[in-house]
Amino acid sequence: MGEKRYLLTPGPTPVPDEIIKAMAQPIIHHRTPQYRDIAKTVNEGLKKIFKTDNNVLTFTSSGTGAMEASVINTLSRGDTAIVVRGGKFGERFTEICTAYGVKAVPIDIEWGRGPEPQAIEEALKKAPNAKALFMQLCETSTATVYDVKSIGNITGKTGAILIVDAISGLGADEFNMDTWGVDIAIGGSQKAFMIPPGLSFTAISKKAWNLVRQSNLPKYYYDFNKYERLMEKSDSPWTPAITLMIGLEKAISMILEEGVDKFVERHKLDAEFVRKTVKDMGLELFSKFPSNAVTAVKVPKDIDTSKLIKSLKSEGVTFAGGQGELKGKIFRIAHMGGIARKDLEHALAKLKEVLKKEDVKL
Amino acid sequence: MGEKRYLLTPGPTPVPDEIIKAMAQPIIHHRTPQYRDIAKTVNEGLKKIFKTDNNVLTFTSSGTGAMEASVINTLSRGDTAIVVRGGKFGERFTEICTAYGVKAVPIDIEWGRGPEPQAIEEALKKAPNAKALFMQLCETSTATVYDVKSIGNITGKTGAILIVDAISGLGADEFNMDTWGVDIAIGGSQKAFMIPPGLSFTAISKKAWNLVRQSNLPKYYYDFNKYERLMEKSDSPWTPAITLMIGLEKAISMILEEGVDKFVERHKLDAEFVRKTVKDMGLELFSKFPSNAVTAVKVPKDIDTSKLIKSLKSEGVTFAGGQGELKGKIFRIAHMGGIARKDLEHALAKLKEVLKKEDVKL
Repeated sequence: MGEKRYLLTPGPTPVPDEIIKAMAQPIIHHRTPQYRDIAKTVNEGLKKIFKTDNNVLTFTSSGTGAMEASVINTLSRGDTAIVVRGGKFGERFTEICTAYGVKAVPIDIEWGRGPEPQAIEEALKKAPNAKALFMQLCETSTATVYDVKSIGNITGKTGAILIVDAISGLGADEFNMDTWGVDIAIGGSQKAFMIPPGLSFTAISKKAWNLVRQSNLPKYYYDFNKYERLMEKSDSPWTPAITLMIGLEKAISMILEEGVDKFVERHKLDAEFVRKTVKDMGLELFSKFPSNAVTAVKVPKDIDTSKLIKSLKSEGVTFAGGQGELKGKIFRIAHMGGIARKDLEHALAKLKEVLKKEDVKL
Repeated sequence: MGEKRYLLTPGPTPVPDEIIKAMAQPIIHHRTPQYRDIAKTVNEGLKKIFKTDNNVLTFTSSGTGAMEASVINTLSRGDTAIVVRGGKFGERFTEICTAYGVKAVPIDIEWGRGPEPQAIEEALKKAPNAKALFMQLCETSTATVYDVKSIGNITGKTGAILIVDAISGLGADEFNMDTWGVDIAIGGSQKAFMIPPGLSFTAISKKAWNLVRQSNLPKYYYDFNKYERLMEKSDSPWTPAITLMIGLEKAISMILEEGVDKFVERHKLDAEFVRKTVKDMGLELFSKFPSNAVTAVKVPKDIDTSKLIKSLKSEGVTFAGGQGELKGKIFRIAHMGGIARKDLEHALAKLKEVLKKEDVKL
């Protein structure tokens, strides 16, 4: 099928051949012991990757579905929640809260920076009735990793639960749901999990379950109780995305074979390699706290971002542009999941070539 | 991979090799002209299959997600809706309405029968403020096709919109959204569309859009407006299930190549063949108005249903059992999508063998 393509975007990420092969087997029915074995293995594997003793519920939806689920299962109309807003996905939590009549108190931080623990403490003091604090592990739009550990330490001493969108960060950035005191952790399929989009994951702490019992926001498809009730039987309330679950089982076995910590460590080294290489080219990083999942690079002043991305695409290399207010100002290089070091080397060599061709003064 | 398996369940249905191959190609990004072409082709094809001029929105979710979307986008808290309840999926609409504070007035019908137009007229007269009438095209749990056409004729003369769960029926049973006066039609991927589960479809009439504008139920992921707004650009608000969309594009091209009416006609003939064959064996049909998608067969008194299904499974043939109150009383044979006549012949021959072995007196 022609030359290899280099898809280095922060979701979807390339799907390894072993996973594609697993998903290409004849489909099986979901109300069977065969499928329940897969669902069980997936839950057990996800628990190891989330580093939690809680079950991990799997929804057929994009990551946004699980973000919505975390709001509507824990909060009630008129509740107050604090939302860290330092990029597009912080904004999304704010929008979801607002759509459901939850008062979202934003902690606005400069894009590319992370929330200061002190600002979180102050916000919680100012809104002592806040039932939840929403934040990202990796804010994909700015390629920034947030200090979840320190913030979990703060929320752990309050009545508020900590809800972390770890969709793009999980598997790439260090994450430890239980010891960090995260109450709801959210993941997605098309990131470090290296399977196609269509699944999202949610783990729920005991503290969060207490809120779930009080929540009066309406829900049906995303009702945590409907899923949790069936976890013991490794069953699901609605027809699951069977082929994606089969792909996920394979992906998890690959991650566990490598070892969760080693998998994260590899992402760290790849991220360092990318950052060093682009800085050596004379380019500047956008984020002050760069994630291991994705690197945001400032576009030099004399360069047209969309032209740069197009030129690279014609060479078979796909980078993502900026989102929201960063459109035209950055490009993003993902280094997670099935993206190998040699893919990064190739892509960065092409970037260098294209910049040279365009005669950019760096 | 060993002997051919015969998965004759009403979802998932077997995925043809051409579709598996299309889905096994390296993944592409969704914010690209290449993906937008796919999304555009899918919308245009679905319109032809739904027989509508309205756009068909595609969600990453099971069919239940689109059922919920049809409630929360059109209704408001305290609204009244009439729900045809003649099986598990009629019950589901009732549950969703109730979860959102919508008063669901059920029209309870004997399982295996369809709603009488007269009963619908009376219900609408008794609840003149009802904003919507919910029903199935094929009630999968009883394998019964409902007379959507006659009921569309009735709701068309009222202010109520007609919402049809056509998830298992579409492509198998005759359906004509626009000329029948259906206001919201819902489809799903793992039925006659012969791709794996994970996508659901919703088409919305002008009359329904008027209600969408008034609806005050909270929503975010399933917000019709967020999807419709992007349809012109063939874009979607959240990351779509890219591989399933690629499979769907292929499935639609296969259906359109055969011709939508011929595709439905083939299902009709296969359904007739299955019904005749089981009756010739001395078995009795459950439904009074059998669907073209699936046939429900009464289990003879002296037979243990789960044993029968297990025996067939050990022969490579998978039938579905009954759901809800029909558990243990029926088994169901699907004949839709990629299930070919020769698969049905093989499966029914095995059924005959197994019944003979068990020495059932028919």
